[in-house]
Amino acid sequence: MSLTLLNERIGTINDLLTTVNLLVWDSRTMMPPGGATARGRQIATLTRLARDFICDDEMQRRLERAEREVAAIGADETSRIAVRQVREAVDAHRRVPGELVERKAMLQAAATPAWIQARESGNFATFEPFLTETMVLAREHGDALGWRDHPYDALLQLYEPEETLASLRRLFAALREGLRPILAAARARPKPRDVLSGSFALADQLTLCTRLARAVGYDFGRGRLDTTVHPFEISFTREDVRITTRSKPKHIGQSIFGTLHESGHGLYEQNVDPAFTRTIFTSDLLGLYAVGGTSYGAHESQSRLFENHVGRSAAFWKHRYPDLIACFPVFAEVPLAEFLAAVTRVEPGLIRTDADEVTYDFHIMMRVEIEAALVKGELAARDVPEVWRQRMRDDLGLEVPSDREGCLQDVHWSTGLVGSFCTYTVGNIMAAQLFETARTQPEVSAALEHGDVGPLSSWLRDKVWRHGRRYRRNELLTLATGRALDPAPYLRHLDARYASGEAHR
Amino acid sequence: MSLTLLNERIGTINDLLTTVNLLVWDSRTMMPPGGATARGRQIATLTRLARDFICDDEMQRRLERAEREVAAIGADETSRIAVRQVREAVDAHRRVPGELVERKAMLQAAATPAWIQARESGNFATFEPFLTETMVLAREHGDALGWRDHPYDALLQLYEPEETLASLRRLFAALREGLRPILAAARARPKPRDVLSGSFALADQLTLCTRLARAVGYDFGRGRLDTTVHPFEISFTREDVRITTRSKPKHIGQSIFGTLHESGHGLYEQNVDPAFTRTIFTSDLLGLYAVGGTSYGAHESQSRLFENHVGRSAAFWKHRYPDLIACFPVFAEVPLAEFLAAVTRVEPGLIRTDADEVTYDFHIMMRVEIEAALVKGELAARDVPEVWRQRMRDDLGLEVPSDREGCLQDVHWSTGLVGSFCTYTVGNIMAAQLFETARTQPEVSAALEHGDVGPLSSWLRDKVWRHGRRYRRNELLTLATGRALDPAPYLRHLDARYASGEAHR
Repeated sequence: MSLTLLNERIGTINDLLTTVNLLVWDSRTMMPPGGATARGRQIATLTRLARDFICDDEMQRRLERAEREVAAIGADETSRIAVRQVREAVDAHRRVPGELVERKAMLQAAATPAWIQARESGNFATFEPFLTETMVLAREHGDALGWRDHPYDALLQLYEPEETLASLRRLFAALREGLRPILAAARARPKPRDVLSGSFALADQLTLCTRLARAVGYDFGRGRLDTTVHPFEISFTREDVRITTRSKPKHIGQSIFGTLHESGHGLYEQNVDPAFTRTIFTSDLLGLYAVGGTSYGAHESQSRLFENHVGRSAAFWKHRYPDLIACFPVFAEVPLAEFLAAVTRVEPGLIRTDADEVTYDFHIMMRVEIEAALVKGELAARDVPEVWRQRMRDDLGLEVPSDREGCLQDVHWSTGLVGSFCTYTVGNIMAAQLFETARTQPEVSAALEHGDVGPLSSWLRDKVWRHGRRYRRNELLTLATGRALDPAPYLRHLDARYASGEAHR
Repeated sequence: MSLTLLNERIGTINDLLTTVNLLVWDSRTMMPPGGATARGRQIATLTRLARDFICDDEMQRRLERAEREVAAIGADETSRIAVRQVREAVDAHRRVPGELVERKAMLQAAATPAWIQARESGNFATFEPFLTETMVLAREHGDALGWRDHPYDALLQLYEPEETLASLRRLFAALREGLRPILAAARARPKPRDVLSGSFALADQLTLCTRLARAVGYDFGRGRLDTTVHPFEISFTREDVRITTRSKPKHIGQSIFGTLHESGHGLYEQNVDPAFTRTIFTSDLLGLYAVGGTSYGAHESQSRLFENHVGRSAAFWKHRYPDLIACFPVFAEVPLAEFLAAVTRVEPGLIRTDADEVTYDFHIMMRVEIEAALVKGELAARDVPEVWRQRMRDDLGLEVPSDREGCLQDVHWSTGLVGSFCTYTVGNIMAAQLFETARTQPEVSAALEHGDVGPLSSWLRDKVWRHGRRYRRNELLTLATGRALDPAPYLRHLDARYASGEAHR
């Protein structure tokens, strides 16, 4: 009974948060330009109400009663975990003063247009005060949440609860050491022809993307695919999970791999246990987002798995190439091997979102160090452009011609998402770890060779998707692969595909 | 200060209600089929929260303080009216028990699929118990709100606050008397050729509809037009007002006049005073809809004005016919006069939404009498089909072959909208009254002759649109036309167009 009352509360909060998700989805896909101001107010009101429902005395009462109920002998484990997760979220929210939440929201509203303007003009100086203030408030937020070794650790808990700056640094050291020779070997390979550039009608791209999403199991009866400038996945329930992709008229790569990436996110959300609908296991109450995955890195692992492990493999394209040719007959003249070489091309570049598999993590490792130093106050915002330039030189041998292609390229700082960058690399590592284990199942690897992702999906559904947020990331990984997060499979994958020459297996 | 606190509350409620509107819009245009269950929960949660914010003690406190503030000498009239409107809405909501609201919501959820099934099979018996229960709850709702002469009067207050069953009966008597000879004369005229049927590509229909909406002043920078089975207008703020239209591949009439109709609704919402954003003057708190118009009839008057008075006029089409021909070259072979005859064809029919201007109100008058009798308990649900058949025979000389084209045709009863039918006829009457007065302005009528709705829109913006819900309907009409609702201009319009032969002026 106490549990029912607590779940009712969580259900109401979940309805508010998933409605915020619809407000966001609509604002990026359908909303006329005039709607922006009112939309901002709607999102602010619903987010505030959700927070009020988490922090109020009634929630405390319901939570305390539920805690007494699950402490009793005989209470089931799932309920015990659910109540513990609510407690963690409630305590975390109550530690953060409402006025700080409001100051952060106000800063974001001002920082976003300032960032857009700075990026357009390539003039970092106009964004610098907003970056300074963003990091001051991030530090206040971290201090309010509480930390032991580094203030950045507190912020990491919002996105990747099992990592700290120290654990990330250990992970990054291993990764950096493993990546260096792979990058050197990949750069030594001959450059493939750029068969992904050309002229590609947008309507045909959407047809192709729809087929690819369907091929990896994304369910259009419970979702839809639209075109946006920045691709994303968002869900309102496992029965309504929407994805978008970006279509460029002169390059086919972004829509293909954007679709496979977002389909991976979508599969995670579409396949959570139906019994977890409107519970804490499908709501990220800590971050106040309705997200089904156990961490942001875990979520990213599913998108990277379908984008890179499945989506850039020879086996997949052997069976999907006819779809590509049907939509764009020009590929009838392109040998499959040449297409595969193009989609696994390695080329250090300035832009993170355009980066290949081998160089991507260098972008992330740099951002994490810069963020941590900014939050701690060891680095001033005005020095970020220079640090950025130096790191791009050291890591990738590139000169940054303008901050537009440097420290102004990402949306994260203007929207206050400090602490989230690491989840991309965690996702890359976790994807490889899961995929390597999945492929040890004979039926999974045999089916993949025949272009069939069904058994892989069954394995992922059983080991990952259905659990939502019930297990912590490392618990989930241990149940699925026998060990916690481990970069070795990722390095093995990159070595095989890009260095040792066993590519496209 | 007290007013500010009250307005903050109203703003929050407005954000919730306009968000419900987005949830509804999305469910009818974009949502995948799987999303329905979760969407129902989201709407229920937000509607409940809005009602809680209206009925709770904090609202009482803020309202009482605001009432004291506006009672003081020197308070401005607009604030006084705003506070009075909040008081009316709060009192009305507090009179209706929460458990009745819940029973109504549960009944609706069950009645809607039952109605769809009954309509598909033409079997009224399966819907009958739901109709009975709908009317029982409507009566309970009316009793809770309170009434003096007839329980139906209480329900009318939700949609058309200045009408009662008695006032409607007076209006209908005058209307019926005036309509009979017009209908007889119209039926005696030769039947025009059906030039609206043919083959019309849906994409071209949307192009045409976009041009027509733009031609009457609908602003696409603050709106959008989509295609749905049932056309509607919905708004989230004056800066984001969306319309939809229905496109049939073999008939061009519905998309043209559906678009003009919804554009009229849209113009009302898009042109409310920006100062009224998020206030009681743009939220129908009584019915818990966010609607800017002063009554549902007033809202309908704007859609009917643009659909019928502007949209079926010779002057309008003289200047828009090239647009029609550009989209559908087949009309190059159709003389304008023949097109105009087709769009003003009079033909009694069974379906209300397909009805022409002369027969439309007979459908409404019948429904109002049936509803009132059902609510009072003078008519049993099982007898509705027979009463319906008899009225169709008496009023329009038609036999009803199946309840599918009879008492099962409308969505209103299954969704609990008891008391709303009269607003269509109020809208027809008010449209004619406003249009007749507007045309007495020489610049309005001169511009209309040149296909320019600009001066008409300026007049309507000044007299109607900008005021939102600030004035009551008859106040607004008196300020605009010198008198309260009056059927004479409507009958003059119908007589001129359909009987005396001064058509298309």
